[in-house]
Amino acid sequence: MNYEINVKPIGIIHVEYSDEEIKNAWPGGVEGVIEVFPEYEEGLEGIDGFSHLLVIVWLHKVTMEQRKVLRIRHRRLVRYGVPLSELPEVGVFCSDSPHRPNPIGIDIVKLLRRDGRFLYVEGLDLFDGTPVLDIRALTPDMMPRKISVPNWYIRLREVDLP
Amino acid sequence: MNYEINVKPIGIIHVEYSDEEIKNAWPGGVEGVIEVFPEYEEGLEGIDGFSHLLVIVWLHKVTMEQRKVLRIRHRRLVRYGVPLSELPEVGVFCSDSPHRPNPIGIDIVKLLRRDGRFLYVEGLDLFDGTPVLDIRALTPDMMPRKISVPNWYIRLREVDLP
Repeated sequence: MNYEINVKPIGIIHVEYSDEEIKNAWPGGVEGVIEVFPEYEEGLEGIDGFSHLLVIVWLHKVTMEQRKVLRIRHRRLVRYGVPLSELPEVGVFCSDSPHRPNPIGIDIVKLLRRDGRFLYVEGLDLFDGTPVLDIRALTPDMMPRKISVPNWYIRLREVDLP
Repeated sequence: MNYEINVKPIGIIHVEYSDEEIKNAWPGGVEGVIEVFPEYEEGLEGIDGFSHLLVIVWLHKVTMEQRKVLRIRHRRLVRYGVPLSELPEVGVFCSDSPHRPNPIGIDIVKLLRRDGRFLYVEGLDLFDGTPVLDIRALTPDMMPRKISVPNWYIRLREVDLP
């Protein structure tokens, strides 16, 4: 391969909650601030007025061991009373589990306001200190009009949103 | 920082079109195949039945020089007859330009069928040989119900979809 994959943070996530509090805030998420480093501030020009941002991050707390996981259960549903044994085991690419070969996180958040290179957002599902790799203003054409999912997933969501 | 960001491809994009043909196929995209490398095939278990996939890739043809770009014009609109000078110059984080500090591509494609570790898809906007970093089955809850965009973006889209 004649290319090199090298990624460096353009910013960092600040939240005033513990990791455990953030886990428990799912699926609503928490408020927080995306700090964009000074050398990238110019890239934010025009971002005011977009209601939502797609934030690409590096899930820095995922270990090399956790990156070997290829099959998962949607464990978050256990807190809604679903026994772990009843959750289907599926491939990691059918899930948003942080434990995946490349722990790249995609988080869609609501932009509350911008103060220079600081973006105040809500709906964050990321730990304090998470490195930000990219930010993309969300536009309606990004999403297909009609999507469908398998039956096992529909059953999960019925439980998931009580 | 006490973490290391290291990313490695889990697969590769195959399309039977030239880069120029793919650029011209936007916004509809082309058909193609996502090959997942054998060691990650297990991660695809259960992916059949999802209509769309979010594919995270490394845009390997973007040069280090192009990664320094922070302000862009939506140049693709020029082919719809919009003079370049009339396109507003905006920050790269308001755009899906491949020229950005971390050239990570997000492509949402339609899953036509799976044959083992080969995913046949349509709507690809990626060059042949693009390294794949992650795949995520698309679910309805990923997208906010109601999003809004600034006026300059609305004007662009009016031109964009003739």
